[in-house]
Amino acid sequence: MRLSIDKEQFLKALNTASKAIASKSADPLLANLKLDLNEKGLEVTGTNKEITIQCLVPYRIGEKEIIRAAGLGAALINAKLLTEVVRRMDGIELTMEIIDDSIAKIDDGRSSFKLNCIKAEAFTDIDLEPNGVILTLDCAEFSALVEQSAFAASNKEQRPILTALNLEATDGVLTATATDSARLARKTLNIDSDARFRCNVPARTLTDVTHLFEGAKRVTLAVSDSSILFLFENTIVCSRLISGDYPVTRAIIPQTFNYYLEVNAQELLSAMSRASLLSAERDYVVKLSMTEEEVQVSARSEQSGSALESIQTFSYTGERLEVSFNSVFVIDAIKALKSEDVRICFQAEMKPFVVLSPKDDTVIELITPMRTY
Amino acid sequence: MRLSIDKEQFLKALNTASKAIASKSADPLLANLKLDLNEKGLEVTGTNKEITIQCLVPYRIGEKEIIRAAGLGAALINAKLLTEVVRRMDGIELTMEIIDDSIAKIDDGRSSFKLNCIKAEAFTDIDLEPNGVILTLDCAEFSALVEQSAFAASNKEQRPILTALNLEATDGVLTATATDSARLARKTLNIDSDARFRCNVPARTLTDVTHLFEGAKRVTLAVSDSSILFLFENTIVCSRLISGDYPVTRAIIPQTFNYYLEVNAQELLSAMSRASLLSAERDYVVKLSMTEEEVQVSARSEQSGSALESIQTFSYTGERLEVSFNSVFVIDAIKALKSEDVRICFQAEMKPFVVLSPKDDTVIELITPMRTY
Repeated sequence: MRLSIDKEQFLKALNTASKAIASKSADPLLANLKLDLNEKGLEVTGTNKEITIQCLVPYRIGEKEIIRAAGLGAALINAKLLTEVVRRMDGIELTMEIIDDSIAKIDDGRSSFKLNCIKAEAFTDIDLEPNGVILTLDCAEFSALVEQSAFAASNKEQRPILTALNLEATDGVLTATATDSARLARKTLNIDSDARFRCNVPARTLTDVTHLFEGAKRVTLAVSDSSILFLFENTIVCSRLISGDYPVTRAIIPQTFNYYLEVNAQELLSAMSRASLLSAERDYVVKLSMTEEEVQVSARSEQSGSALESIQTFSYTGERLEVSFNSVFVIDAIKALKSEDVRICFQAEMKPFVVLSPKDDTVIELITPMRTY
Repeated sequence: MRLSIDKEQFLKALNTASKAIASKSADPLLANLKLDLNEKGLEVTGTNKEITIQCLVPYRIGEKEIIRAAGLGAALINAKLLTEVVRRMDGIELTMEIIDDSIAKIDDGRSSFKLNCIKAEAFTDIDLEPNGVILTLDCAEFSALVEQSAFAASNKEQRPILTALNLEATDGVLTATATDSARLARKTLNIDSDARFRCNVPARTLTDVTHLFEGAKRVTLAVSDSSILFLFENTIVCSRLISGDYPVTRAIIPQTFNYYLEVNAQELLSAMSRASLLSAERDYVVKLSMTEEEVQVSARSEQSGSALESIQTFSYTGERLEVSFNSVFVIDAIKALKSEDVRICFQAEMKPFVVLSPKDDTVIELITPMRTY
């Protein structure tokens, strides 16, 4: 392999593909990026076996020549070192040459680096061909779908299935569901497609993927039995799926309620985050006390003291009610709604309640109360 | 104690005094701030026994009333909790009242907090009266003195005296010296005073103190046998001194040299930080190779490969010379000089060399080379 390449485009691909590299891995080969100069351009690939990211640096972008090739080929180079070296080089254009399959020589005329490298054949081959069910979506819509649901997934590995975001496409609707068993978030998106699939994608991976979109407009999902591919611009991300049956959650969401609170989102957020300072050691539990005249948020701790917050702007319908809960769950839910006002609908003191946006019926957040102190 | 107080001024004092609070301490009392409302204003004090910080919130700042007192008194309140609570409260003015020496009630009309507190008498009394030798300096000049020297102190506790910055005032000159035994930094400042003292102040403390100066113009040092006080604006910082004799370092600095390199600071910094990527596992050692025609920086590692950098803008006087050193030391020294160009003067391959600013003879940085590979 021998080429000269635009530094900024090369660095961008290195940075993106490096996001798949684990900071520590049992397999030292996985600390490397695979660089493959072929007829499409320079493919930069990183993987940690859970997730694989491949970025293509094309020969040209519009009128501009990005790569001048003088010999195709491939090699594995340490991801962290290569990215740091390229990042710090001053030149606008770099030349790179692989010598004897063992040294990558990188030069900008002033700095000259010889990095040890490994034959490309040592790398596990990962299938990045789109197979299975194909669905193309607007990037912004897919990002919102993930952002409004994935946060409710579990981050504990005891029940791996709960670390997933469940994606289900059927009848022209894509539904994303996440639950850690104490709370649940669900978001739907109308899709102009008759694609049908059901899969469990690691929630953290999905969040990472949406952060890679940058300027991309459309993303194509390719869902097969054991993996899902995301294709956007010059990037392909492949993630394993989590096996197992996702819990049946449709029946959990209550349909009728006895108490309704509508309140300014920001005011409730501030009051809850302040009050919960006093219950940090007790799962940040706060109590919401509501009558038609007064709404208060309170918290208390043996060790630290107590807090009492009065909500100024609200409308409440129902008899007097007190509900205690982990304030982090409600704060996450309100933030995810991205709504000026939120509506909270209760069945009873110890029954799950839902947090909604009055203006957006595509998203619902369900939270289980905690025992009142 | 009962008062109403301007939130911003209160928060500023809490933040500053909290900088003395250790994140973990064997003595739970030291997690508290002492609040003392007396005839001067509200004194907020935090300590970790090594360093004590006291901020005064005065009753008035210019025309503006900051505190309205309705009863003097004192109490100890958990620093982290109090600061967080005050930070997040929305009101412009807060009221605070200590009830039965055990509860601090803080209120802004909307949020009401009752924080557990402790009698002020439980706090160790720390003497914050200025004693000993007094010296008043310009804050910017004292900050520069510290910034250009303190970085060379050791951060290892094996030889505590080397973690100090040695301050010596004599004959109208204040000299700051730091060394970790592999490098040394010395900075002098002319003082309009016949003050004479010699003391060893923890280097990290001095850096922290200069970061507290903000808008302050003048700082007064009060040096006694076992402690040093810094007084500026409404703040007093007291630090213990490190006991023991500071190494005699005057004779170490060579006076005659055989090789001189003058080079653009930024170019040398970039080249060394790039090259040292290749020797991260070997103390970031790089080799400087100089002739009158060519100056190069190189580094190599068995594991990773090698780097070779050509310096474009330089002037070198002397025969061919190769010197290897820990690049971190030279990078720190160059940064501390804050000079566009730097001059490096060598005696011989394995003898200590000095890094200077061609335009500022008040600062000198001495570095011991490492064995060449």
